[in-house]
Amino acid sequence: MSAVVTTPQLLEALSRTIPEQRLVTDRDIVASLSADDAEWAPVGSALAALRARSEAEVQEAVRICADLRVPVVPRGAGTGLSGGANAVDGCLVLDLSKMDQVVEVDADNLICVVQPGIVNDDLKAIVREQGLWYPPDPASAPWSTIGGNVATNAGGLCCLKYGVTRDYVLGMRAVMGGPAGYGTAVRLGRRTAKGVAGLDLCGLMVGSEGTLGVVTEVTLRLRPALAGTPRTIVGAFDNLVDAGVAVASVTRRGLTPYALELLDRECLTAVEEWKHLGLEAEAQVLLLARVDTPGEGGADEARGIVAAFEDGNPLWAVESSDDTEAEALFAARRLAYPALERLGPVLTEDICVPRSAVPAMLAQLLDIAKRHDVRMATIAHAGDGNLHPLLLTPPGDDAAREAAQAAFEEMLDAAIALGGTVSGEHGIGLLKRDGMHRELDPASIALQRAVKDAMDPLNIFNPGKVW
Amino acid sequence: MSAVVTTPQLLEALSRTIPEQRLVTDRDIVASLSADDAEWAPVGSALAALRARSEAEVQEAVRICADLRVPVVPRGAGTGLSGGANAVDGCLVLDLSKMDQVVEVDADNLICVVQPGIVNDDLKAIVREQGLWYPPDPASAPWSTIGGNVATNAGGLCCLKYGVTRDYVLGMRAVMGGPAGYGTAVRLGRRTAKGVAGLDLCGLMVGSEGTLGVVTEVTLRLRPALAGTPRTIVGAFDNLVDAGVAVASVTRRGLTPYALELLDRECLTAVEEWKHLGLEAEAQVLLLARVDTPGEGGADEARGIVAAFEDGNPLWAVESSDDTEAEALFAARRLAYPALERLGPVLTEDICVPRSAVPAMLAQLLDIAKRHDVRMATIAHAGDGNLHPLLLTPPGDDAAREAAQAAFEEMLDAAIALGGTVSGEHGIGLLKRDGMHRELDPASIALQRAVKDAMDPLNIFNPGKVW
Repeated sequence: MSAVVTTPQLLEALSRTIPEQRLVTDRDIVASLSADDAEWAPVGSALAALRARSEAEVQEAVRICADLRVPVVPRGAGTGLSGGANAVDGCLVLDLSKMDQVVEVDADNLICVVQPGIVNDDLKAIVREQGLWYPPDPASAPWSTIGGNVATNAGGLCCLKYGVTRDYVLGMRAVMGGPAGYGTAVRLGRRTAKGVAGLDLCGLMVGSEGTLGVVTEVTLRLRPALAGTPRTIVGAFDNLVDAGVAVASVTRRGLTPYALELLDRECLTAVEEWKHLGLEAEAQVLLLARVDTPGEGGADEARGIVAAFEDGNPLWAVESSDDTEAEALFAARRLAYPALERLGPVLTEDICVPRSAVPAMLAQLLDIAKRHDVRMATIAHAGDGNLHPLLLTPPGDDAAREAAQAAFEEMLDAAIALGGTVSGEHGIGLLKRDGMHRELDPASIALQRAVKDAMDPLNIFNPGKVW
Repeated sequence: MSAVVTTPQLLEALSRTIPEQRLVTDRDIVASLSADDAEWAPVGSALAALRARSEAEVQEAVRICADLRVPVVPRGAGTGLSGGANAVDGCLVLDLSKMDQVVEVDADNLICVVQPGIVNDDLKAIVREQGLWYPPDPASAPWSTIGGNVATNAGGLCCLKYGVTRDYVLGMRAVMGGPAGYGTAVRLGRRTAKGVAGLDLCGLMVGSEGTLGVVTEVTLRLRPALAGTPRTIVGAFDNLVDAGVAVASVTRRGLTPYALELLDRECLTAVEEWKHLGLEAEAQVLLLARVDTPGEGGADEARGIVAAFEDGNPLWAVESSDDTEAEALFAARRLAYPALERLGPVLTEDICVPRSAVPAMLAQLLDIAKRHDVRMATIAHAGDGNLHPLLLTPPGDDAAREAAQAAFEEMLDAAIALGGTVSGEHGIGLLKRDGMHRELDPASIALQRAVKDAMDPLNIFNPGKVW
């Protein structure tokens, strides 16, 4: 249907009610807004982009696109790693990054109301001024938007103890379609700590990757800012599997650190060569744990984590007494992905397995990478069982690309076989559609599609993604 | 459609594949399985009841009922307070309380897999043997089933710090309809700590009150058992509004006790007259807070809560040094509802407002009860803003019933006006349908209905509830 609509026709319709300066037609800029950070995911040709400044503009755009049967592809900062924000042919790219205001911070109720385009770290800084904390901290937090975090149900480092984006979304406003009428703005969820009035459509929107509607405002739960200085525990290991044994032991011992991260020598070296943080990478694998329990309780937890690390036969495992070093190690964790991206295309896995299966999964990753002759760096939210092996390829090497893609699919299958999932926190987008179909019960996918059809019968919202 | 099916026809169809001893036709027993604990909610006449023993039996029942267009009303222990488990005319009551097995406790991954009929406290006892803890603790925990807790997204005392049922449901099996085919058993969700593969239908099922399908197995997240003895802080107040000011101050000071409960003199007196726990009820209102942070951190928190209570001008506020007394007070909190129920019909509110609005909401409750001349007792998960005013009526007094029902609706409106919701944790069922329609955006209800229609096009699953 959309093939019959041209860029001038779409622009003419949109500019009747939306200020022209919001519309982007420059082909280079449209192209730059047409893809996220996923490697080798197909990118379609958008008719135009709209940089919306208000919910009313989003409503108009959705209404007009529904009339014209033009797909709407919402996007934030484009830091996604699954192609969920990639343009499809003949679509309007709906850029929400300019809707970046904090509408309200309500310290008395520990909530805030924000527009979707606000950057995660910017929100953190604003609420910190009032002694509050928004925990979800994807490694992309300096760049990614809350809207994108909601669309993928983003996780991060601290979700081991403090939960993922879904745990913080109390309510939202969204521009929906279907039975509500395309372009209708709807309030979903609530402002209260608890609530069970009807089906949880707010929760359903979280992680729906823009396929059900466009989020225009989010009500988030906050926590009081953490007091005191966290403790950092570092363990150095000879190999991934030993580190995995230590990770499984942390859970088995009933310990819940604030974060439990893994990074290997490839990551450390890439960050050190880029940023010169003074990291020493004599070990093959590091585990970084952080404990935020104050006082003697925190000291106990730190000792427990050292003991758990020792179950994995480490080179050494200690509580760090050097705050600068500890900060540098966590900075390295956050910078690992962009540091490796500098070296060439990176295919990013996002598998998640039961914690006890982490050692087995890491062993299989090594085996699969070796068999496909793929260079692999590994970072992981290890404490959650959420592993991000990064498959590195030299630029322009088609054979290496194909080997990486084959290894990628095989790693998904290995995770499924261990009772895991193909995506812990990045979403399905385009890259993990096949994997998701291998993971899920076909009847469950039929039900998902029925819900999508009911809420978006014209298939306008981000078509072709997820399923 | 169901009017044309008779009890013998339904039994004949069911008994072809389901053992006859599962089928209940005794009118008294069927009647006893036809209602939950909601006062004055309409109860229909069921054709029969089925005490299912396996998922296969649930599948057969759903398939046959869909063929015959007979509504299926699932139920657990029947402790619900909104009429969600009440029979509708011509239905099959599907009693899941005999499917009460723990399938698996996986201590290494902090999860368990259970059948829906297991009683909440029984599950707690079983996982405690392995040093684990299932936190959600509705006051009905000694009787209510996990299936019922999932259907209503039950909360409880400790959800202030530890979250509600939804926060613990990782995955489930359910017998669904619609696009899956009526009677199809589906696996939803996951076993991993995180996961974003497709729409979150598992989360959507939680709190859906049996309107989308029948849950036959649940995978729950567990926590390590809490160590140490909790601290109890008690504050005594002259009136509800002062207590509300203290509650709002706890949140504003950034304190997160394990529980923060309110109970008034009516409740204390009713429990004391029944159980003789030795409670002294010289105060009009008590606040009970519990802190589980170990060591000096917990002592600090307790002092902070005493200070917050002092903001409400209490008669006194202290950390209890008497464990027996502290236990008796929490026991009184749990027994308040059954104690009051002994005195006559009780209409139970379940409103939830933003924490800062608790004082204003309590003032309005007093005003509304007074204007309608209704006797009111009040218990509350005050720290969540979740208030349970209980409207007490003498048995058989129609005028008192009508006054209570009018006050009930007015309280819902007052909660909505303060930015609250008509149900914090009991669900909509039959009693709060009108209130929900006043609370929610009509477009949001249209979307909910579209999802219901997509997943249950024959409207077989618990029809007439919620909407």
